[in-house]
Amino acid sequence: MRYVVIMAGGSGTRLWPLSRKGTPKQLLKLIDGQSLLRLAFERALRVVPPERVLVVTGADYLDDVRADLPEVLPENVLGEPVGRDSLNAVAWPAAVLARRDPDAVIAQLTADQLIEPMDAFVAALEEAFAVAEADDCALVTLGVVPTSPHTGYGYLHRGEPLPGFPTACTVLEFREKPDAAIAAEYLASGEYWWNAGMFVWRAATFLSQLAELEPRTHARVLELAGAPERLAEIFPTLRKTSVDYGIMEPVSQGRADGRVVAVALPIDWRDVGGFASLAEVLPADADGNVVEGLAVVQDASGNLVINTTGDHVVSVSGVQGMVVVHTADATLVTTLAGAEAVKSLVSAVAESAGPDFT
Amino acid sequence: MRYVVIMAGGSGTRLWPLSRKGTPKQLLKLIDGQSLLRLAFERALRVVPPERVLVVTGADYLDDVRADLPEVLPENVLGEPVGRDSLNAVAWPAAVLARRDPDAVIAQLTADQLIEPMDAFVAALEEAFAVAEADDCALVTLGVVPTSPHTGYGYLHRGEPLPGFPTACTVLEFREKPDAAIAAEYLASGEYWWNAGMFVWRAATFLSQLAELEPRTHARVLELAGAPERLAEIFPTLRKTSVDYGIMEPVSQGRADGRVVAVALPIDWRDVGGFASLAEVLPADADGNVVEGLAVVQDASGNLVINTTGDHVVSVSGVQGMVVVHTADATLVTTLAGAEAVKSLVSAVAESAGPDFT
Repeated sequence: MRYVVIMAGGSGTRLWPLSRKGTPKQLLKLIDGQSLLRLAFERALRVVPPERVLVVTGADYLDDVRADLPEVLPENVLGEPVGRDSLNAVAWPAAVLARRDPDAVIAQLTADQLIEPMDAFVAALEEAFAVAEADDCALVTLGVVPTSPHTGYGYLHRGEPLPGFPTACTVLEFREKPDAAIAAEYLASGEYWWNAGMFVWRAATFLSQLAELEPRTHARVLELAGAPERLAEIFPTLRKTSVDYGIMEPVSQGRADGRVVAVALPIDWRDVGGFASLAEVLPADADGNVVEGLAVVQDASGNLVINTTGDHVVSVSGVQGMVVVHTADATLVTTLAGAEAVKSLVSAVAESAGPDFT
Repeated sequence: MRYVVIMAGGSGTRLWPLSRKGTPKQLLKLIDGQSLLRLAFERALRVVPPERVLVVTGADYLDDVRADLPEVLPENVLGEPVGRDSLNAVAWPAAVLARRDPDAVIAQLTADQLIEPMDAFVAALEEAFAVAEADDCALVTLGVVPTSPHTGYGYLHRGEPLPGFPTACTVLEFREKPDAAIAAEYLASGEYWWNAGMFVWRAATFLSQLAELEPRTHARVLELAGAPERLAEIFPTLRKTSVDYGIMEPVSQGRADGRVVAVALPIDWRDVGGFASLAEVLPADADGNVVEGLAVVQDASGNLVINTTGDHVVSVSGVQGMVVVHTADATLVTTLAGAEAVKSLVSAVAESAGPDFT
């Protein structure tokens, strides 16, 4: 049977002070009062019923995830006691599902992006499931068809098409985030897709590749699936690595007996990774200001102003292109153009004002 | 005997949200933890003992003024139940002091500015007292010797020197705030001083001019001085006007039988009227940032960042020339160059977020 696993880890410091150690980006109700996690769940429901959706998140967020997604079975929310990177956020649910259902086919989806249109996403997912079901050697990766020479994503180099599927093709190579010139070449060639970090595979196929490439992790996640009460003991011992480095790249290089297939995801793909991208996805007023919460904005344009508190007014006057975010215990003032620096600012805040503020 | 009356009225919206309806500018502990009022009081103590200092303020601020200046006798803090402009902030204490001491000579001082050096200020005040004591027709006004063609002050046109005093001279005319060209002429001529809005006079002299020019106000303030319990009834009936319009200009034009004398105040005169001037008087770090309170400032220069709360962190990154002020219930983000617009912003905040925030 088909399953969806939504990966919702990470603390998302680039949206600080909205995102916090206690409230990661995916749980923030940023979009019309809905979280990115909730939107990812709504997408999952287009392909599987709610009882076949799992979420992998940090142990600290279990309660919040369950509150945000009450339709998900409590035992299907997996809480990592420590972050162990994406390989383990993939391997653990694969082991859990393989134990429940030896024929499980898993779509491993992210919750970081806004995805439009929904129908194209669903069609790609259906194709990817069909490939994984037809080919028990295939690890399927979803490749977003690029619309710009983006330097912030990894790329997939596509090879031969797979007969019988509308878009599926082999993957020749995974490429790191390119510089601008190389990204432009990738885009012009038509041979490259963005690596979406979303995968579809049979649990059994994935686990057999894992056994070849990361045998210790394989053994330990199977052990964990059979003894969930030993989570706190076993999970921290898993080797920290990404699914790309640990599995997808070596398999694409022929270093294990599976193969990597890409399926096209022809979508508008908006990573809500920082304030600049958040400002792009939220509705703006006539002056280009995105204003959320109790705020007064005067003689100002192109600003992102967010106030999450109800008993404090944020007032902004005479500025352009600024980010002003006010929460109960922290205020951020920066520029949309420089908002990527928030990550280092959060470290400075933790150091000089104290970790409780981050 | 000599007395000092410090005028500390006004709500100071240009420093909102630091200054509030409940906490006017003069009471904010802006300068090394001291308020402008406290600094004005320290100046007063250079010429009179504390029991001969009076403060005129708004009735809402009586408790705060008494707390800030515990050395001032409680009955010497006069609280106006409603604002009635500067004429009445001068006439009321004159009537009160004339009743207590028929020979009272009053220096009527402001609390809006930083004044350096103290010795020059004290010397000017001593000269002004001496003029008022020697000449029972004189209303003495202090004239700041201009250091720039400032268009934000009124000017005094000086006439003949008074024999026997180092700087005193008659005043030919009061001039409104000039445009830049006229201000440049004033400065070049050497005949003009800035109108400091600070005065020295015998209570009896002032009251006799008041009786000529504003007989109704004269009668009512005398009545009030004799019946302080009728404050709430009498004060609101006083005609609202400034001491310049009501007394100083008509007297300088010969419309009453006194005369106006100016004494030079050769000081560095810094009006802390808004955030731009506040940023100039507070100490800055190596990057030109003035930072007060719990704040983290990174990759930023020439900013004014003030946080009055201890449980909230303000973080500023990648910006120049900004004003960021955080208080318990309001945050302001604007530019130093545009900070004058705060006054209109406060109206907008009162209207859209509610008057409690202003």
